[in-house]
Amino acid sequence: MTEQSTALSRVGAQTLRDFARQALTAAGAAEDAAALCAEVLVHADLAGVDTHGVARLNQYADGLLRGLVSGTAAPVVTGSGAALAIDARNALGPVGLCLATDRAVAAAAEHGAAVVTMRGSNHAGAMAWYTERAARAGMLAIVLSGSTKSMVAPTGGASPFLGTNAFAYAAFAGQEAVSFDAALSVASRSRLEACLREGVKLPEGWAIAPDGSPALDPAEVIAGIDGLTGHSLLPFGGPYGAHKGYGISLLVELLCGPVAGAKWGPRVPGAGAADVGHVVICLNLGAFGDDVAVVGDRITAMCGALRSVPPTGDGQGVLLPGDRRRECAQRRAREGVPVSAVVLAELDAVAALLGLAPLPRDG
Amino acid sequence: MTEQSTALSRVGAQTLRDFARQALTAAGAAEDAAALCAEVLVHADLAGVDTHGVARLNQYADGLLRGLVSGTAAPVVTGSGAALAIDARNALGPVGLCLATDRAVAAAAEHGAAVVTMRGSNHAGAMAWYTERAARAGMLAIVLSGSTKSMVAPTGGASPFLGTNAFAYAAFAGQEAVSFDAALSVASRSRLEACLREGVKLPEGWAIAPDGSPALDPAEVIAGIDGLTGHSLLPFGGPYGAHKGYGISLLVELLCGPVAGAKWGPRVPGAGAADVGHVVICLNLGAFGDDVAVVGDRITAMCGALRSVPPTGDGQGVLLPGDRRRECAQRRAREGVPVSAVVLAELDAVAALLGLAPLPRDG
Repeated sequence: MTEQSTALSRVGAQTLRDFARQALTAAGAAEDAAALCAEVLVHADLAGVDTHGVARLNQYADGLLRGLVSGTAAPVVTGSGAALAIDARNALGPVGLCLATDRAVAAAAEHGAAVVTMRGSNHAGAMAWYTERAARAGMLAIVLSGSTKSMVAPTGGASPFLGTNAFAYAAFAGQEAVSFDAALSVASRSRLEACLREGVKLPEGWAIAPDGSPALDPAEVIAGIDGLTGHSLLPFGGPYGAHKGYGISLLVELLCGPVAGAKWGPRVPGAGAADVGHVVICLNLGAFGDDVAVVGDRITAMCGALRSVPPTGDGQGVLLPGDRRRECAQRRAREGVPVSAVVLAELDAVAALLGLAPLPRDG
Repeated sequence: MTEQSTALSRVGAQTLRDFARQALTAAGAAEDAAALCAEVLVHADLAGVDTHGVARLNQYADGLLRGLVSGTAAPVVTGSGAALAIDARNALGPVGLCLATDRAVAAAAEHGAAVVTMRGSNHAGAMAWYTERAARAGMLAIVLSGSTKSMVAPTGGASPFLGTNAFAYAAFAGQEAVSFDAALSVASRSRLEACLREGVKLPEGWAIAPDGSPALDPAEVIAGIDGLTGHSLLPFGGPYGAHKGYGISLLVELLCGPVAGAKWGPRVPGAGAADVGHVVICLNLGAFGDDVAVVGDRITAMCGALRSVPPTGDGQGVLLPGDRRRECAQRRAREGVPVSAVVLAELDAVAALLGLAPLPRDG
């Protein structure tokens, strides 16, 4: 997507990481927290998930500077066995969720499976970073995330309640890697922005007005979401399956809200700590009756069979979840990350605010 | 739905249960296995999920009589801690999956969370029976099920690979019960049959022909699916989210296939044992940093808040997953289960085949 935009600079991943780390440190984050956040954000940039990359640095730095997020908090782990509960103590999202992932992996290595819930967290970037970290440790990992803001109406309802809520999982086997990572709304706010830029109306089924009628004007919906005037996005699922998307998003809301002990339901960002919830579920692939290598061979065979399904006439055939992101990451590791003029200007403003040198342009 | 059909008899739930139990016993099932299957099937009839009720009795009895399913097999449990693997040994689906549910509840009661995988299983009815059983024990339970037959094309592909694959979860708290149970295809085969009966075309996005083009004729698609000529249903998700439905269905296929060690990918029923896979994930709601009563209060509050979301103009407002099934079950427990003439004729044929008295008509 970004590749097609007009004003772009290519920036090397390490340059982006260094800049993000320095900015977060200058904004008050501990060195290791800043380095971790920089890694998670730039991983998304490499994967082509530009909405969850350094485009978020401004938001992260602002949260630190305004004291809404702690750059130095140490999350607290309670629980035992296969069930742990972490209070992130308002740490930067990646700090808490990386710890939750590592503890889930360790507990599943010991007990065969484990669930770790987290409260008191913040925006943690793209979930695939965490699921893939656990997948490299021999797990099938599922990571669910609540949101900082509710934007999505439950089916039959006319005001925002659910977060866009993320559902991600990954399992690696042999040369194959399955890595699914999706928001559970039919479209994201950034997708609406793209429609606005392109001057096209929203398809019916993406958003509704405060009276529940279809909202097709992207400018109106964005203004309504940002101004909290009652516009809502809809769960994914389409005209015959939105109740299924609602039901799966509600599972994420239940687990990351009431079960984890974090915020749920109607909520707005910026009013105190975000108190985002996350849940990590890990299955040790070697704990279910067969050696992990046997399970890996089966997963490899299944991935190969999926790639061999004859393609429909209008497409490129069957992709596995994560194929596009991995291919993009390989290309961008070689060619640099394309950063839009808008994001560059934001990063320059962050640098100026924090007394740092602006992001070097590599090319 | 069934209520609107023309030729219906009302039959009491206990009458249906007794008939199903006797038929399954006569077909070779052990007494306890037959009673359990009867309970699971009639629970679906009460809930209005007619496709998974006694309409399946013919299929269950046929599987027993042909030796494709064992009415007496004892599933074998291996594993330890929070991860158990069960080989159902080709038992009737409810026999294996009820055991898996009970073992997952017990393991989660001890370890805080647990995952039980199952291979070698068969059609197990509607998943809500199992999730609700675990929910009554203080769990949030997720049950995933593979299918006896692959009917669903992966996004971008033009032939069946995935099962319709079920995704269910339940959590009970106070007077509230959330119980979600859905197939992950946009439509089921029985929904296509309803279109055929009503003489309407299928909406675009439900099914594709072997060349990948939209298939709109329900008779053609049903014949194609049954005849294995390459027609496919599509994952739920709609025009902008089918890849998300595909990704979530693929998680079910991965877990119930390669991870559980059961069949996956293209498969047809009737060719030997079905080898269906299931996965049960249980979270002990009292194991994540708060007492189960505190979590229950939060879930109750969240359900109440959801019911208070202002309704869209065209609907009845926000329902929680399971509301319709529960309301239907209360009504049918009073009024009897409406059984269509087609199903009654099938049940009479089963009775005749097994030398049993036909199902008594209550009303």
